[in-house]
Amino acid sequence: MRILFVGDVVGRPGRETLLSMLPTLRRKYQPTFTIVNGENAAGGRGITPQIAKSFYEAGVQTITMGNHTWDNRAIFDFIDDEKKLVRPANYPPGAPGIGYTYIRSNELELAVINLMGRTFLPALDCPFRTVEELVATIRKRTPYIFVDFHAEATSEKQAIGWFLDGKVSAVVGTHTHVQTGDARILPQGTAYLTDVGMVGPYDSILGMEKEAVLNRFITQLPARFEVASGRTQFNAVVIEVDPTSGKARQIETIRIDDEHPLSE
Amino acid sequence: MRILFVGDVVGRPGRETLLSMLPTLRRKYQPTFTIVNGENAAGGRGITPQIAKSFYEAGVQTITMGNHTWDNRAIFDFIDDEKKLVRPANYPPGAPGIGYTYIRSNELELAVINLMGRTFLPALDCPFRTVEELVATIRKRTPYIFVDFHAEATSEKQAIGWFLDGKVSAVVGTHTHVQTGDARILPQGTAYLTDVGMVGPYDSILGMEKEAVLNRFITQLPARFEVASGRTQFNAVVIEVDPTSGKARQIETIRIDDEHPLSE
Amino acid sequence: MRILFVGDVVGRPGRETLLSMLPTLRRKYQPTFTIVNGENAAGGRGITPQIAKSFYEAGVQTITMGNHTWDNRAIFDFIDDEKKLVRPANYPPGAPGIGYTYIRSNELELAVINLMGRTFLPALDCPFRTVEELVATIRKRTPYIFVDFHAEATSEKQAIGWFLDGKVSAVVGTHTHVQTGDARILPQGTAYLTDVGMVGPYDSILGMEKEAVLNRFITQLPARFEVASGRTQFNAVVIEVDPTSGKARQIETIRIDDEHPLSE
Amino acid sequence: MRILFVGDVVGRPGRETLLSMLPTLRRKYQPTFTIVNGENAAGGRGITPQIAKSFYEAGVQTITMGNHTWDNRAIFDFIDDEKKLVRPANYPPGAPGIGYTYIRSNELELAVINLMGRTFLPALDCPFRTVEELVATIRKRTPYIFVDFHAEATSEKQAIGWFLDGKVSAVVGTHTHVQTGDARILPQGTAYLTDVGMVGPYDSILGMEKEAVLNRFITQLPARFEVASGRTQFNAVVIEVDPTSGKARQIETIRIDDEHPLSE
Ligand SMILES: [Fe+2]
Ligand SMILES: [Fe+2]
Ligand SMILES: [Fe+2]
Ligand SMILES: [Fe+2]
Ligand SMILES: [Fe+2]
Ligand SMILES: [Fe+2]
Ligand SMILES: [Fe+2]
Ligand SMILES: [Fe+2]
Repeated sequence: MRILFVGDVVGRPGRETLLSMLPTLRRKYQPTFTIVNGENAAGGRGITPQIAKSFYEAGVQTITMGNHTWDNRAIFDFIDDEKKLVRPANYPPGAPGIGYTYIRSNELELAVINLMGRTFLPALDCPFRTVEELVATIRKRTPYIFVDFHAEATSEKQAIGWFLDGKVSAVVGTHTHVQTGDARILPQGTAYLTDVGMVGPYDSILGMEKEAVLNRFITQLPARFEVASGRTQFNAVVIEVDPTSGKARQIETIRIDDEHPLSE
Repeated sequence: MRILFVGDVVGRPGRETLLSMLPTLRRKYQPTFTIVNGENAAGGRGITPQIAKSFYEAGVQTITMGNHTWDNRAIFDFIDDEKKLVRPANYPPGAPGIGYTYIRSNELELAVINLMGRTFLPALDCPFRTVEELVATIRKRTPYIFVDFHAEATSEKQAIGWFLDGKVSAVVGTHTHVQTGDARILPQGTAYLTDVGMVGPYDSILGMEKEAVLNRFITQLPARFEVASGRTQFNAVVIEVDPTSGKARQIETIRIDDEHPLSE
Repeated sequence: MRILFVGDVVGRPGRETLLSMLPTLRRKYQPTFTIVNGENAAGGRGITPQIAKSFYEAGVQTITMGNHTWDNRAIFDFIDDEKKLVRPANYPPGAPGIGYTYIRSNELELAVINLMGRTFLPALDCPFRTVEELVATIRKRTPYIFVDFHAEATSEKQAIGWFLDGKVSAVVGTHTHVQTGDARILPQGTAYLTDVGMVGPYDSILGMEKEAVLNRFITQLPARFEVASGRTQFNAVVIEVDPTSGKARQIETIRIDDEHPLSE
Repeated sequence: MRILFVGDVVGRPGRETLLSMLPTLRRKYQPTFTIVNGENAAGGRGITPQIAKSFYEAGVQTITMGNHTWDNRAIFDFIDDEKKLVRPANYPPGAPGIGYTYIRSNELELAVINLMGRTFLPALDCPFRTVEELVATIRKRTPYIFVDFHAEATSEKQAIGWFLDGKVSAVVGTHTHVQTGDARILPQGTAYLTDVGMVGPYDSILGMEKEAVLNRFITQLPARFEVASGRTQFNAVVIEVDPTSGKARQIETIRIDDEHPLSE
């Protein structure tokens, strides 16, 4: 079983890059499951039903979110009808939407959990206790579990990785928009990567126009950030899961940009 | 001109790994200059004069620091005599120690600047204005400038990279203890890497015992963190600088652990 | 029924002021119940069993705590034997100690809850959901409920006040060490005060030596804060509760210092 | 010389309360100078030129601001023409507007400084160094100096108070929207108050509709905050300054609401 997970897709440049790359990548990697983080898909802030639909049509089975889930108000109108779009599971009870879902491919069933860190981020419910409970429930149904942990601090991300080692197939981080180089299989068989990185403008700051962001840092005045233009980058990760045990066999990062063309 | 920069060295395991790896790495990469981030060298918190001395004896020419600079009180006794240990340059005027230094190798002179971000970190002086002023001064003397930007947020790190593009030879980040996979040469010739990663325990959370860190996240009770033991990892970066222009020609990350042995 | 609640007692000067003032205050106000916040009682950081004992002997029936609960490691040895010392109730399940207690005076029984905010403070469990559940349980036993909400942000404090209006007798804030002037009875009968203020050194910064604190703000270097010396201040609040309904009838702040002597 | 300073005026209810109270207050207190914090005057977020004009027409001589200075984009069009509206002086050099101004009444000239804290707030320049420099400059021209320190943490506010003791006539805090009860004259003659409090809706959370704020705390979902309606409160402070020395003689807080009617 092979999982292709694509990091935060930022704005139109990100969406176009995603949709143009997916066919090639699916041909190359033959993923059993394709998952994408879509929290920045609509102009850098949230997602719309049209965008979600276009992702599904391109073969994406699940969309994960993060702290930008609610930025585009359209979400409140359609999230409760969504069965495949997951927002962080540790929002307080009663939040719109769902925190995990199951996707099928033939007889295989993968659970996808979205979870959010609290360090330097809003005070959601404890991600450790939330995920512990979820995993206990899910494991009664399937040993294949994928976790997108949307968080800022590397300490909290590594902590969740160790916490879930041996209990889920993979824990990968999102949110920093920068891919890390620490992909590994933890001792009990869980694939781990601190951050998958983003899809979108390459000459930018996290996908946004660099001049505006720079200006805000220097002047401390408010600034409206727009998605940058120009050439793009694509960051993802491929995880090979043992179909018997649900443990990870291999984890490999994908980084594609002008200087790192896709090797077919 | 080649610069070897080694990320945050954590505790005794980190120091031993550094000292045992350096000879091989120096043989392999033949660096003109060797620089190490030492903010976690003494038990994970700060540095001592003995440790600094052992680094210098192993061929390290400059030690950079970060938010942990002052954790080991010994620093206050020796930092003012140090000509090669640099703490973040944007501490308010009057802080002990220096924020940048010059190191020589034959006729080549490299300026090394240590700088700290402010996002999710203490309110130092503006790193952008501080470094802009420093670079203007330094460039009258040498075009070879290396910046260790010790910061948490990827946005602030990328911002400093773009801000200094074309004005310094390299900007590399430290502090998150996780190497990123985004090494590149920015359009105006500055080598950039969001984070170099750490040197120290591999099965750990940022170098510390994972049980204690996990416990703190889950219980929110205070916990004393100790440096972990067991096998280690080594993270560094090598930057090739054009000796005429001072611009970067190449940037290559080094990641060494059990699963990624050093290829000689 | 009258409740005397004394704000954060800081160090030896705070303890001495408390113990010397209590007899006079108890004579003047004839409180049915006397409660003290003791999170800074031991040198500004935490509390010891000896100090707790001295408070009880002086007629204090309950000690509330806050973010400094665990600063003095002695707490871990005695908190589980304590029936009258309460730490924030929204620590994750399994934390040592208890989050609320009942105290009696003749046939009257008052529940005392300690709760902590999360804005600019550690990520405990949601104080709103925690207290809602506690209050539902407690109200089956007694309508007299007193809440010490230890929090930083005025917004979160006012929010808890409105949230509990009509459900508890009083919500008073602690932690900022500065008494506020907004004591009032909310429309449904809950007495409210954003912060009670502290007991301890008057010429100080929150009870600590002002030079060290000032120095830290200006230099951003670490500094060891010691409890200040010299003349002291005493801040408290008295709440009159209707014995039939459990609603508050009156709330009056007490501020005593050189310029505001106790009027007997 | 007497200074009347009115705390954060919130939205239309705040403006109407201000304009209706001012005549009575000016008759009662006969202030030499009247100053108002206007950072929340326009719908809770920033200020407009029309609102500023209406304040000036009502006898306000200076408007101070804070972290909400830039919320209403109109500010960027008119702030550079403003000679009497001051935004925090420790914004980086080049920020629109001015950080202090001089106002006259007969032969008396008062300098008014607006300054912002950095604890739990954006990383402006150091308020201590900024104000130290400003005060040195201003004192060559006038010994009458009033500082509105817009800050969150009581520690930073008390620190600025002690830092400026003897150098300015008064330091009063704003931003928390809750008046504190610690008005005093510091030993070297500076009047001090941690927070003046707000003007606007009384049954609210910091002036905003309490339901929306409560909802945000509980759900952690985004919420649009609107200024509340209903009865209002008025919070201010009056400071008596010795016309010879520029030192404060007296500081008195004003709190007016349904339960605390203005005593004429
Ligand atoms: Fe994102
Ligand atoms: Fe995010
Ligand atoms: Fe470090
Ligand atoms: Fe660090
Ligand atoms: Fe306290
Ligand atoms: Fe506290
Ligand atoms: Fe305000
Ligand atoms: Fe404010």
